[in-house]
Amino acid sequence: MTRFAFTVEFDGRPFMGWQRQSHGPSVQQALEDAIHAITGERAVIHAAGRTDAGVHGLAMRAHADIDKPIAPFRLMEAMNARLRPNPVAILACEVVPDDWHARFSCVRRAYVYRIANRRAPLTFEDGLCWRVIQPLDADAMQEAAQLLVGRHDFTTFRSAHCQAESPLKSLDRLDVERTGDRIAIHAEARSFLHHQVRSMVGCLALVGMGRWSVDDMRAARDAKDRAALGLNAPPDGLYFVRAAY
Amino acid sequence: MTRFAFTVEFDGRPFMGWQRQSHGPSVQQALEDAIHAITGERAVIHAAGRTDAGVHGLAMRAHADIDKPIAPFRLMEAMNARLRPNPVAILACEVVPDDWHARFSCVRRAYVYRIANRRAPLTFEDGLCWRVIQPLDADAMQEAAQLLVGRHDFTTFRSAHCQAESPLKSLDRLDVERTGDRIAIHAEARSFLHHQVRSMVGCLALVGMGRWSVDDMRAARDAKDRAALGLNAPPDGLYFVRAAY
Repeated sequence: MTRFAFTVEFDGRPFMGWQRQSHGPSVQQALEDAIHAITGERAVIHAAGRTDAGVHGLAMRAHADIDKPIAPFRLMEAMNARLRPNPVAILACEVVPDDWHARFSCVRRAYVYRIANRRAPLTFEDGLCWRVIQPLDADAMQEAAQLLVGRHDFTTFRSAHCQAESPLKSLDRLDVERTGDRIAIHAEARSFLHHQVRSMVGCLALVGMGRWSVDDMRAARDAKDRAALGLNAPPDGLYFVRAAY
Repeated sequence: MTRFAFTVEFDGRPFMGWQRQSHGPSVQQALEDAIHAITGERAVIHAAGRTDAGVHGLAMRAHADIDKPIAPFRLMEAMNARLRPNPVAILACEVVPDDWHARFSCVRRAYVYRIANRRAPLTFEDGLCWRVIQPLDADAMQEAAQLLVGRHDFTTFRSAHCQAESPLKSLDRLDVERTGDRIAIHAEARSFLHHQVRSMVGCLALVGMGRWSVDDMRAARDAKDRAALGLNAPPDGLYFVRAAY
């Protein structure tokens, strides 16, 4: 048995999410089916994060154990051939120690959330960013974002379906950067609660629109109550960017 | 009658090209149908450039004459609503003088050609850039590109279907820029011959792969013969970026 680590890029639009589902296609299933076609084995793929339906990956990390002797480069090439026409690509593949785990060994995860701050409908990027028509004040968003950095009870920004034991998390980075009509929100932490990035982004957008003050963001944080959430941003703009080990 | 100028963004993937065709959808038809639905008029759209099948537009300029009294902002909003689900969006719309012509008044056109220089298949950008697997030397490409800047007979880089009277053109800019695994080739001129950008990019790619020397590019230019063309790049990576008046 050899443990292979993969770096995976995927367009989340056609998928029900990363995790295998009975009711529709998933990235996990696409990868596991590709491995089965190549090796005849029913390997299970483990990922650094299990993204929701419509969320994308630029460099998701994952691993699987495979018995068949195969070189990492050949496995990558064969998987990329078998993954067609799914919008999933293996960017890198290497052998890792048996105790390396894509999820449990991961010490830091990075996401980016992309907003198109414009009036016109999206053409190239429909489903690939969140279009917000109201002009957004990125400076106010950046100021409000800093209230969320650090160790907090993120209950307000946590989905009702979140399975984490505790709502206490340390957020290492939340930066809002505008380039033309694009806003990128960079989030980094050891781990995130379910919907945490989308919930933080939704509230930052309210600040950007002027519907919330920076103080409203502080009050939402301190409420520790899901009912205090202003807005949950759609999955379209969310990308898993990087996992560190 | 009022002449309206439009700035149009479009994803060229589903279209047979800009120009109206009997055998398939075109950007021109999508725009003219939208105007007809709003005004009841069969206006003709004129564009700064008539892009080929699969070529994209970031800010194509175009105009049409419309009799119905309508404010530019309302016309833009109504067109964007009617254009759905085509990947075509009006980014700006304004009234222009009756003698302003999107094609004939245009004094400079800019294109960008995007290459993904990587081994993995494309996910998000399938059809939106040219994937080149062989490592490309962008510095050598930039050196070769400068041989094409200036006034030359571009017969080598001209499609057999080109309808221009003369193959003599002045190329104002041809710059090759690498950012990570992406290469962007910026081309600017008063006007281009049919397939000129794609033909220049195809030969630059040969230089980048090391299959052509910089001298081979000079020889191809000086041959003034379509048979000397090394490679015509696919439409996927080509974007009409800007028209100046």
